[in-house]
Amino acid sequence: MNNEIKACVFDVYGTLFDVHSVKKKADELYDGRGEEISRIWRQKQLEYSFLRQIMGNYETFLTVTRNALSYTLRSLHLENSPEKEELLINEYKKLECYPETEEVLRSLSDKKLAVFSNGSHDMLDPLIEQSGLAPLFDAIISVDHAKQFKPSPASYTLVLKELGVERENVLFMSSNGWDISGARNFGFQTAWINRGGMPTEELGVKPHSIYEDLKGILEWR
Amino acid sequence: MNNEIKACVFDVYGTLFDVHSVKKKADELYDGRGEEISRIWRQKQLEYSFLRQIMGNYETFLTVTRNALSYTLRSLHLENSPEKEELLINEYKKLECYPETEEVLRSLSDKKLAVFSNGSHDMLDPLIEQSGLAPLFDAIISVDHAKQFKPSPASYTLVLKELGVERENVLFMSSNGWDISGARNFGFQTAWINRGGMPTEELGVKPHSIYEDLKGILEWR
Repeated sequence: MNNEIKACVFDVYGTLFDVHSVKKKADELYDGRGEEISRIWRQKQLEYSFLRQIMGNYETFLTVTRNALSYTLRSLHLENSPEKEELLINEYKKLECYPETEEVLRSLSDKKLAVFSNGSHDMLDPLIEQSGLAPLFDAIISVDHAKQFKPSPASYTLVLKELGVERENVLFMSSNGWDISGARNFGFQTAWINRGGMPTEELGVKPHSIYEDLKGILEWR
Repeated sequence: MNNEIKACVFDVYGTLFDVHSVKKKADELYDGRGEEISRIWRQKQLEYSFLRQIMGNYETFLTVTRNALSYTLRSLHLENSPEKEELLINEYKKLECYPETEEVLRSLSDKKLAVFSNGSHDMLDPLIEQSGLAPLFDAIISVDHAKQFKPSPASYTLVLKELGVERENVLFMSSNGWDISGARNFGFQTAWINRGGMPTEELGVKPHSIYEDLKGILEWR
């Protein structure tokens, strides 16, 4: 089966890149409230992308991320200033990748390699550029091309168009259980990078493989 | 504008009926963990309905609710037995309505009255029946007729078909901010029953009115 994999496609936030520094920055700006802020912010960021997808009311992930931050700060009765918002949003553009990322990508150089994210290019491109990983990828794919968020089938279709492969020849990696459910539902091969040891989602589809970090996927070579 | 309202349509869980007793039952069954269980359960119940809507992978709200409970108990390392699951699910069929519900409904008897819920009839019908409110409603409308969860436009369309009214003549009530966003996005008049004093959602649309409980909507008569 492994010979059939022609493309390895990676989610970005939490999968290749550690979002921890966003929490750290929030902690600095809001006097130790970083944990709380980043938890609610992430939850609302996902919820708003899901709800806009369902309502047919698409805005870029950058807008959704700003909206989610605004809700979060209001819900915690914390001040939201344009300056602080910029500092927090900018953190997303300079995240560190997980330590194994580069080695794993280099070991897969005989496959097509791409990132595929709900993030819009105004967030993704600066991040990939500063990481030094850009030359390793054949494509930086954003759902913004289709204005359809993951986990909609229409979003995953972008990967096929962009890489010129069939869905069963794609191995897709994400740290988000719901993204893996959507990708398997669409017809990708799937590897859930379950860094947090979370329970499997109950959405009627299971990941093909589950690993603690990206190194696990090397058995698909 | 008030003369234009021909139908008053109510969400069910948290809007007409108090879901507190579910928490109480979880507290009994799981030794004081009811707060935690009901919080995660509710969050996953919503998330799974949203994700299935996006993935095009519909199952009834009863199934989604059971799946969400299963995830919740696994995430908390608590035992999930068929007996306990039945006891918890059954609580949804015998919730108490909020104290003002009946009086408000009776005051609106010159309008068409309906409930409209993500709940499937196997959950909704026993609940409305035991409440004694059934004779006050012209229709019990479940998204299950269209197999499209709220807040999709396709789901709200069911209300128009069922009641024979135009969207601008519908006043829609929900305690869920996202449901109100979806309903306004669709074209209903909207009253957010914000019992918990939550912040307004950041989804690009605002409720027409916000009230602490159902009595506020009487000004739309």
